[in-house]
Amino acid sequence: MSTAAQKVTQPTHLKESAPLWFEEIQTHICETLEEIEIEFMHPTHLPGQFAFKSWERHDPTEPDNKGGGGKMGIMEGGAVFEKAGVNVSTVYGEFAKEFCHEIPGADKDPNFWASGISLVIHPSNPFVPAVHMNTRHIVTSKSWFGGGADLTPTFPIDEDTKDFHQSLRTACDAYNSDAYAKYKLWCDEYFYLPHRNEMRGVGGIFFDYVNSGDMSADFEFIKLVGKAFIDVYAKIVRRRMRQEWTIDDKYKQLVKRGRYAEFNLLYDRGTRFGLMTNGNVDAILMSLPPVAAWP
Amino acid sequence: MSTAAQKVTQPTHLKESAPLWFEEIQTHICETLEEIEIEFMHPTHLPGQFAFKSWERHDPTEPDNKGGGGKMGIMEGGAVFEKAGVNVSTVYGEFAKEFCHEIPGADKDPNFWASGISLVIHPSNPFVPAVHMNTRHIVTSKSWFGGGADLTPTFPIDEDTKDFHQSLRTACDAYNSDAYAKYKLWCDEYFYLPHRNEMRGVGGIFFDYVNSGDMSADFEFIKLVGKAFIDVYAKIVRRRMRQEWTIDDKYKQLVKRGRYAEFNLLYDRGTRFGLMTNGNVDAILMSLPPVAAWP
Repeated sequence: MSTAAQKVTQPTHLKESAPLWFEEIQTHICETLEEIEIEFMHPTHLPGQFAFKSWERHDPTEPDNKGGGGKMGIMEGGAVFEKAGVNVSTVYGEFAKEFCHEIPGADKDPNFWASGISLVIHPSNPFVPAVHMNTRHIVTSKSWFGGGADLTPTFPIDEDTKDFHQSLRTACDAYNSDAYAKYKLWCDEYFYLPHRNEMRGVGGIFFDYVNSGDMSADFEFIKLVGKAFIDVYAKIVRRRMRQEWTIDDKYKQLVKRGRYAEFNLLYDRGTRFGLMTNGNVDAILMSLPPVAAWP
Repeated sequence: MSTAAQKVTQPTHLKESAPLWFEEIQTHICETLEEIEIEFMHPTHLPGQFAFKSWERHDPTEPDNKGGGGKMGIMEGGAVFEKAGVNVSTVYGEFAKEFCHEIPGADKDPNFWASGISLVIHPSNPFVPAVHMNTRHIVTSKSWFGGGADLTPTFPIDEDTKDFHQSLRTACDAYNSDAYAKYKLWCDEYFYLPHRNEMRGVGGIFFDYVNSGDMSADFEFIKLVGKAFIDVYAKIVRRRMRQEWTIDDKYKQLVKRGRYAEFNLLYDRGTRFGLMTNGNVDAILMSLPPVAAWP
């Protein structure tokens, strides 16, 4: 355990149980996606599989130069999932000075500890929506949970959008009756490309700085979000994955993915956080689409 | 002429002659690329042609809501040039407050006037390098020229790199014996992806805030850069455009283009300047590749 990790005052159980949960849901999500690949039974295409790669983060502010690390899971060239990246990481150290004022509790003490799961899925079929999900636990002199899930179809279909929102609403309602309305709005505001004056997708939920005073309850909410996400996304994928598509549909998907790349590189805080905390570049930029187009 | 344009105190001739030059070199560059398309004589592909589109910029700080505009030239799906965007624009108004401290001379007076040409060329053949060139004249309470040109091959070839640098060196040397060394180094520092720890390409020149006291001489240098760029780039394209390539070469080109998109969206000041001054989004993001990949 690093000195930074020791410096933060935090109920120990969350700093142990949260990373365990993120690994557990990573395994569950990857297995679910692999099951769908097998179920799809493409005539000429072997079912896609995840490859896992562990990485270590180095932090020169730590005496042993260690700053945690993570485990990337990536499936490339699957029959259903053209690219799916599912990462967990637990990192700690000191924020760079110029970054401290942006992070609650870091203005006086730059030490941080952060653990989370982050995934982006770019399906092959243009009628299967792309998706993102992330949940995280961050500890500075304060501590909180954050996360979200949002759906990005190339061709929005009401049935899918409704199911996705309903599943996340159920997770939110079990936690707090105000949560869904607030987190849905936050999502719409966050996943927005001002230069295009367009939404990234059809929304979902987004939340940050969640600390209700009962962090065990907050943690239960985090678990519900992860489970609700994979249940509904698997359902949507199975519903759409055999739909026929044309080259024109595929090109529209590539253009939509170009917008996805724009958002992630121009605005996404997770990308910015990762690059500014010297995270693993491959893991951070795994969210970028396998192929994208700009007309 | 706008009030912002009248407010800046500047030798009138440059605010007339610089935009005229940018339009003249735009025409010359587009014609040169179209000549190459015709020369290539693809058996099944019609020669690519530029389409031109004028756009107006609106500026709410101006009484008439006018803030200049520009003319985009774009060639898409050419036999040699998969995508080439060549833009000129002349814009004026007031900088947003949060942007003023970043621009020399704008801290006291937010009025600006800016004119320039900017181009990015993404060739079809992976052995023909991508290229960028930009020259601009900016007027706030100060005034200066800026610009540069840099080459981004997927497979760097010494002969091309040497020719490109030599051509720009000749343009610099005719202006000032110190210019080339300084502007070449500036280019290497600027077109760099810190998160990848890699150069964007093989360099060229980059310069900004150029005002030697003899702005007519500075303007002559700007003209030399434009002419040197198109002469040497046309030579390199003609040399490589018939080279055979494989699907594997093409995929490597798409990955290299992914890096190009990363640089432009994460770091490029021109992109940032354009988006922050409410420029034309299509023109600003025309630099993005037609298709890109992230492995």
